[in-house]
Amino acid sequence: MHAINIIAKKRDGAELSREEIEFFIQGYTRGEIPDYQAAAWLMAVYLRGMTDRETRYLTLAMAYSGDVLDLKDVAPLVVDKHSTGGVGDKVSLVVAPLVAACGLPVAKMTGRGLGFSGGTVDKLESIPGYRTDLSVAEFKAQLREIGIVLTGQSADLAPADRKLYALRDVTATVESIPLIVGSIMSKKIAAGADAIVLDVKVGNGAFMKTLEDAEILAEAMVRLGSRVGRRMVALISDMNQPLGRAVGNALEVQEAITTLCENGPADFREHCLAVATEMLVLGGKAADTDDARALALETLTSGAAWQKFRELVEAQGGDIRYIEEPERLPRARLIEPVPAPRSGYVAAVNAAEVGMAVVELGGGRERKGDPIDHSVGVVVHYKVGDPVRKGMPLFTIHANDEANLAAARERVLAAYTFSDIAVEPLPLFYRRVVT
Amino acid sequence: MHAINIIAKKRDGAELSREEIEFFIQGYTRGEIPDYQAAAWLMAVYLRGMTDRETRYLTLAMAYSGDVLDLKDVAPLVVDKHSTGGVGDKVSLVVAPLVAACGLPVAKMTGRGLGFSGGTVDKLESIPGYRTDLSVAEFKAQLREIGIVLTGQSADLAPADRKLYALRDVTATVESIPLIVGSIMSKKIAAGADAIVLDVKVGNGAFMKTLEDAEILAEAMVRLGSRVGRRMVALISDMNQPLGRAVGNALEVQEAITTLCENGPADFREHCLAVATEMLVLGGKAADTDDARALALETLTSGAAWQKFRELVEAQGGDIRYIEEPERLPRARLIEPVPAPRSGYVAAVNAAEVGMAVVELGGGRERKGDPIDHSVGVVVHYKVGDPVRKGMPLFTIHANDEANLAAARERVLAAYTFSDIAVEPLPLFYRRVVT
Repeated sequence: MHAINIIAKKRDGAELSREEIEFFIQGYTRGEIPDYQAAAWLMAVYLRGMTDRETRYLTLAMAYSGDVLDLKDVAPLVVDKHSTGGVGDKVSLVVAPLVAACGLPVAKMTGRGLGFSGGTVDKLESIPGYRTDLSVAEFKAQLREIGIVLTGQSADLAPADRKLYALRDVTATVESIPLIVGSIMSKKIAAGADAIVLDVKVGNGAFMKTLEDAEILAEAMVRLGSRVGRRMVALISDMNQPLGRAVGNALEVQEAITTLCENGPADFREHCLAVATEMLVLGGKAADTDDARALALETLTSGAAWQKFRELVEAQGGDIRYIEEPERLPRARLIEPVPAPRSGYVAAVNAAEVGMAVVELGGGRERKGDPIDHSVGVVVHYKVGDPVRKGMPLFTIHANDEANLAAARERVLAAYTFSDIAVEPLPLFYRRVVT
Repeated sequence: MHAINIIAKKRDGAELSREEIEFFIQGYTRGEIPDYQAAAWLMAVYLRGMTDRETRYLTLAMAYSGDVLDLKDVAPLVVDKHSTGGVGDKVSLVVAPLVAACGLPVAKMTGRGLGFSGGTVDKLESIPGYRTDLSVAEFKAQLREIGIVLTGQSADLAPADRKLYALRDVTATVESIPLIVGSIMSKKIAAGADAIVLDVKVGNGAFMKTLEDAEILAEAMVRLGSRVGRRMVALISDMNQPLGRAVGNALEVQEAITTLCENGPADFREHCLAVATEMLVLGGKAADTDDARALALETLTSGAAWQKFRELVEAQGGDIRYIEEPERLPRARLIEPVPAPRSGYVAAVNAAEVGMAVVELGGGRERKGDPIDHSVGVVVHYKVGDPVRKGMPLFTIHANDEANLAAARERVLAAYTFSDIAVEPLPLFYRRVVT
């Protein structure tokens, strides 16, 4: 078998065999197939697509390019959730302890932010001491002990994905359904999840800009996961405006804590309950979504979810005082509320622009490996559909630099659109995708 | 400007600007754009194509990636010919001296063989002493002095093509019309040709397998050349069977010499006359094709072409004794005529198979840089349409190794197809393409 023949076959739109895909992925991961051949192949995949069968072989080849965790000795059924990424998406920080507190083990490896999209690992690292580099042994031990882990992606899992992702990033081959499916699902499979709830974002602050694309991606992942024996459900959720109110690492941890303590924004709380409900049903902790929702709500209001979050932070070395008194979390030097420039109804709060404003404040990264400032960010006080009066604080900038503050102020102001007549709030979810 | 945006733009099927194409080609040639980005871009070009305008910008960017020869001080009008490559194609060895002997300067840089396709440089190197590495100064001096040069491609000309071609070769992006046009025409432009006759081969022993593809390529090159001020004509010629009778380096030089001395195969002689005719018309040495053909014929039969070939070989350091007594040329140890397995009419002599048989004998190369054996090859005695009697020598193998000889015998035998009923000979040419 030769790499060039596999490139040519995909270039010509033919279906690759399991052996060909495994040969290519293994060869590339081991460094036997050079970057330039993989780049040509990725572009051919981008433009020619892949069948479900090819996508499955690709995903499995990537998953099995490194260690694949078997958590059966630790927990009989492990649920995971995955968001395709967005602005202000701190759902995992609430949902993971909420579901774990219901007695369903949650083992989650999560990523860093890139571009406008934030990452759970960055958010957790706002908490001094919190370790996101657990070894596999630590991962399993903690899962056994407290039924919850939230850590970074282990370098031993799905190394093919890390290598391919870095190459896609510089060859304009990121936005390909089979490659996205392979990337997400290979990591989930390698991390040992039995049941997976996907939160597929759609909108200007998401990688999928249209509902149609989001549906294609969600359906492809649900089909693939089911086909390889995972329990699957996907929610397609809105990302045209930031999720919740806070965007920025420490600010989002604060909002998650507030939500766990029952004072968070209603839309964000509702989003978390919906995701938790799906996880509980998939994990067999409730007979149906009504029961699951009741259980989730009870676990949130009773404070059990909050207790589980404390356990999690403590187990992973985080300093508990920072979450008990969140005002201790990294705090920006300049905090400036920005008044609404006019009265009316909020018609849009462009999520991508808010996300990029936070990147420019130093709270996100343009390139992998850039350092980030956990303290900065934006808190939006009014969202789509809200009536607002001129002069009221529309949003607040948290910055450590006057110039950055001024730039973010302009960018977020420009992200807002107003209307004289009443505007419908945006839905939280558009669709639920099951097999 | 960023390479990734240019890749994405082509990936999405948009037309690249002159600035974008120049940025990419210059950046790649200088090593600022890495192989993997160029590979992704090449695959996007392969699958999305290029407009005439993009192809022109690409070709000029490649031509001007290095030195561009200006031969105006040496000759007022320089003609060149280019074949897209085939099996047994020793046309340049006859046509260049023939046209130069008519008083039209011919300056030609030529390539080495790869795969089933032979290369003029390899053939010339069968002549002991013949130099194919002339410097630009030597190139110009010889052109001024004797009006003919046949040498290898200078490393200073179109370096972008060398780099891109090597990458295309390993990324399954060779067979792309705009990339082929850019590769061929950038070298011709850089080498200073004012008028170019293209010999576009079509058939199983050519890169273009169908007449339609050959026409598209021929028309694209003629349009491009004309648009950048070159006089252009293209002939689309048959490459379903070897051209002439000899395939193999020294054997082809012998056949060229025989043809220059008026004893060559009729079909090959006719092919050479047709190409020379076009060159003479383009170069203004004749009013029309009839006059040009008469001039070419006269120059061939008078021995003037043969004298010019002698001058050429002598000027480039070749040992004249080897062409005056061609039996001195490298000669294989084993020479075996293979009898026809049946009587009938020859229906096919698969050129690609004969070409690969010669590669396997050691007379060609699978990869760039492989050494070759100039002495080996195959001479076919019967071609399509010829009646043959069982037991007559069908072809002769020239080999230096028993095992190779046996393999080539089987391969060439299998390349022959016979018919009980009469078969039409294949045409030499299918079409003539002008602006």
